[in-house]
Amino acid sequence: MSDTGFISATSIVMSSHGEPSEVLRGHELVFESVPEDCVLVEMILASVNPSDKSRIRGVYPTSIPDRDFKLASDPSQDVTGTLAGNEGVGKVTKLGSAQVTDINNVQISEGDWVIPFDFGSLGAWSSKLVIKAKSVVVIKNTEGLTADDCCSIKVNAATSYRMLLDIVTLNKGDYVIQNGANSGAGQYLIQLAHLWGFKTINVIRDRANYQETVDYLTSLGADIVVKDSELGTPEVDEQLKNLDGPIRLAINCIGGENAQKMARYLEANGTFSTYGAMTLDPIVVSAPSFIFKNLTYKGYWLGLFYKNNPVSVWIKTWYDILELMRQGKLVAQKSRHLDVSANLNAELLQDTVFNALNSSEKVAIQF
Amino acid sequence: MSDTGFISATSIVMSSHGEPSEVLRGHELVFESVPEDCVLVEMILASVNPSDKSRIRGVYPTSIPDRDFKLASDPSQDVTGTLAGNEGVGKVTKLGSAQVTDINNVQISEGDWVIPFDFGSLGAWSSKLVIKAKSVVVIKNTEGLTADDCCSIKVNAATSYRMLLDIVTLNKGDYVIQNGANSGAGQYLIQLAHLWGFKTINVIRDRANYQETVDYLTSLGADIVVKDSELGTPEVDEQLKNLDGPIRLAINCIGGENAQKMARYLEANGTFSTYGAMTLDPIVVSAPSFIFKNLTYKGYWLGLFYKNNPVSVWIKTWYDILELMRQGKLVAQKSRHLDVSANLNAELLQDTVFNALNSSEKVAIQF
Repeated sequence: MSDTGFISATSIVMSSHGEPSEVLRGHELVFESVPEDCVLVEMILASVNPSDKSRIRGVYPTSIPDRDFKLASDPSQDVTGTLAGNEGVGKVTKLGSAQVTDINNVQISEGDWVIPFDFGSLGAWSSKLVIKAKSVVVIKNTEGLTADDCCSIKVNAATSYRMLLDIVTLNKGDYVIQNGANSGAGQYLIQLAHLWGFKTINVIRDRANYQETVDYLTSLGADIVVKDSELGTPEVDEQLKNLDGPIRLAINCIGGENAQKMARYLEANGTFSTYGAMTLDPIVVSAPSFIFKNLTYKGYWLGLFYKNNPVSVWIKTWYDILELMRQGKLVAQKSRHLDVSANLNAELLQDTVFNALNSSEKVAIQF
Repeated sequence: MSDTGFISATSIVMSSHGEPSEVLRGHELVFESVPEDCVLVEMILASVNPSDKSRIRGVYPTSIPDRDFKLASDPSQDVTGTLAGNEGVGKVTKLGSAQVTDINNVQISEGDWVIPFDFGSLGAWSSKLVIKAKSVVVIKNTEGLTADDCCSIKVNAATSYRMLLDIVTLNKGDYVIQNGANSGAGQYLIQLAHLWGFKTINVIRDRANYQETVDYLTSLGADIVVKDSELGTPEVDEQLKNLDGPIRLAINCIGGENAQKMARYLEANGTFSTYGAMTLDPIVVSAPSFIFKNLTYKGYWLGLFYKNNPVSVWIKTWYDILELMRQGKLVAQKSRHLDVSANLNAELLQDTVFNALNSSEKVAIQF
C-alpha cells in the first residue's frame, strides 16, 4: 500500500471475448485513489478454472464491462477492458471510508480476507484490485481456513453444493454418477455427497497417475471410481446394475460420447444435468430413452442460482461451506500454486495465466 | 353373431416383435363362446398410427401376451400370439352375462359402442373380439359422435390433451411449437390449445398439398404454420422472435435435425418434450443451450399417464374429449377409411394393414 495514494498493480486486462492469447494482456496499472465506497484488495490466490476459458471465449452470456485503467508507464494513457479471472481471495489493505460494508452488510476492516464477487465485471488475476466494498464477501473468521479453501468457494464448491440440492431431491443412499470427477467441482461433489449420505460413481480419464487419482478420490469419500474407457463394458455394466441404491442423477461437464455412455446407467425417471462442456461435443439422446425411460435432461448454471436468490440465501451456502472447511469436513480442491510473487511483472503474469489456462492440472496463481 | 355360439372373426395375429411384414399374419379365427366376464365386440373402425409400427417393432417396453387362437379352417389347430392394433371402436353384440360392467363400472348393454382398452394385450385389427368387459370403455351417449371421434381417443386425442396439461403449466397466450403438426396428435393439439387459450406454431413438411394442409390446420385453430425447410431462415427467425407471447413448450415427434432446428425457438427456461420418433435420428443438444438457456428436455409417454393414474382420472380425460366432440368443439383427426367390409377375408385384411402401415396418410380400417 502506497502512502502517496498511488497504487500500482500488475493485472490481466481482457479487451473483448475471444481466444485467451488474443484478448488477454498483462499490464502494469496504476490506481490513483481508493474511492469512499471501495476497498483496496491485495490478491493472495486466484484460481484458473475451465470455466474461465469459456468465459473469456464468450460462451457465457455475460458482457464485458468496459473500464478504463491507467497505465503505470504513462498515467495519461488508458487501457480499456476488464480485469480477467473469476475467482480468488485477497486481503483488504485500505478502506475507502471507515464504514464500508460488504455485500452482506458486514463491516470490513483492514487485514480482512475478502472474496471478490462481481459477476465477471472485475476479475481476480491482478495483484491488487480497487473494488466496490459491496462487490466483495468478507470472511471475518479465518481460523482454520487456508487461502485455497476460500479461493474455490465462489465457483466450484458452490456449484457442487447447489447441484446436489437443487436439481432433484435425493434420498440417502441414492447414487450420483459424474464425469470429470477429479475436477475441482467433482472433488467437492464427492465430499458433500458423502457428508449428506448420497453415494457417488466417479468417471475419470485413464491417465498416467490413474491409481493415485483413484486413491485420492476414494480418500475424499468416492464410493466407486471408473475409467471413461470402461463405460459400457460388461464388467462395469454388471457392477452398476447391482448397486444397493438407484442412480438417480448424472452430472456432466464433458459432453459427447462420454456423456452418452454415462447416461445409460441412469435409472428410469432419472435426471441428467449438464453444468460444463470440457469438450464442445453436443449431448445426444435417443427418443426412446426420453419417452420410455422418462429421463429428464437439463442444465445447471450457478449464475442463475446467484441471480434468482437474494444475497442472504447464497451467503448461507458460502458460510456453510466455510464452516465445513473450518471443521475439517471439507477440503479444498487440490491445486498447484504458480507463485508469481517474486519479480512480479506484466510479462510474468501474462505468461503464467496462459500456462495456467493450458494446464491439464488444476492451478492457482499465488500473488 | 352366431346362434350356435361359434363366432368367426378375421384378425391380424402378431407372433413376436419385428418388422410388420414378418410378424403379422391375417387369419380366420373362431371363438367358441363368450365367457361370463367377456363381451363380443364387432369392430367398426380401427386406427393405424405411427405408434402401431413402433409397438410392432418392439420399440415400446410392452410384452406380447401369448394367447392361443383357434383357426376356423381347423379348430383343433391353434395360432399363438396376440391380436395387433392399438386403437379402435366397436359395437357390443353379445354379453357374457347380463351384468357385465366396463373398466369404469358402467353397465354394458348389447348395441353399446365400446373402445377396447387393454394396454396392447388384445388389439383392434380384427373384425370381432371376445374381450373381457373390464378391458373396454363403454360410450353410453353416442349422440353427435362419429366412429372417427371414438376411434382416436385412446392414443392421439388423449396424448395431446395430457401433453398440454402435464408437461409444463402453460399460461394463456403462451406459444407451443410442434413438429409433425398435421399428424393425428398434432391436429388435436392445435384444437385443444386453441380452446384453452394457448397458441400454436406448427411445423410441417413441404409437401405437394402444402397450402391445402395449411388451410386445414388454420381452420382447426393453428396460429402459425411453417415448413420444416424454413426453420432457421431469417424470415422465420424474425417472425418467431416477434410474437406476442413466449414459446415455452416444444413438442417433438420427429427427432434429428428437425427437432434441433425447432428447439432453437424455445424461450429461455423452455421445455422440449419428445413423444414420438418418426425418424430414428437422436435428439442433439449443445451444452450451452442446456446451461445458459436453462432448457429442459424430457419425454412424454401416455402409457405412464395411464399406469400412474387411477381409472377415474383418465376416464375424466376421455369423457371430456368426448363431450368436446359432442359439442362440435373438437373434430376427429382426418383419416382415410380403408373399407374391408365387402368380401372380408384374411388375405384382404392382411394386405390392407400392410398398406395402411406404409401409408403416408392417416388411415383407419373400416370393418
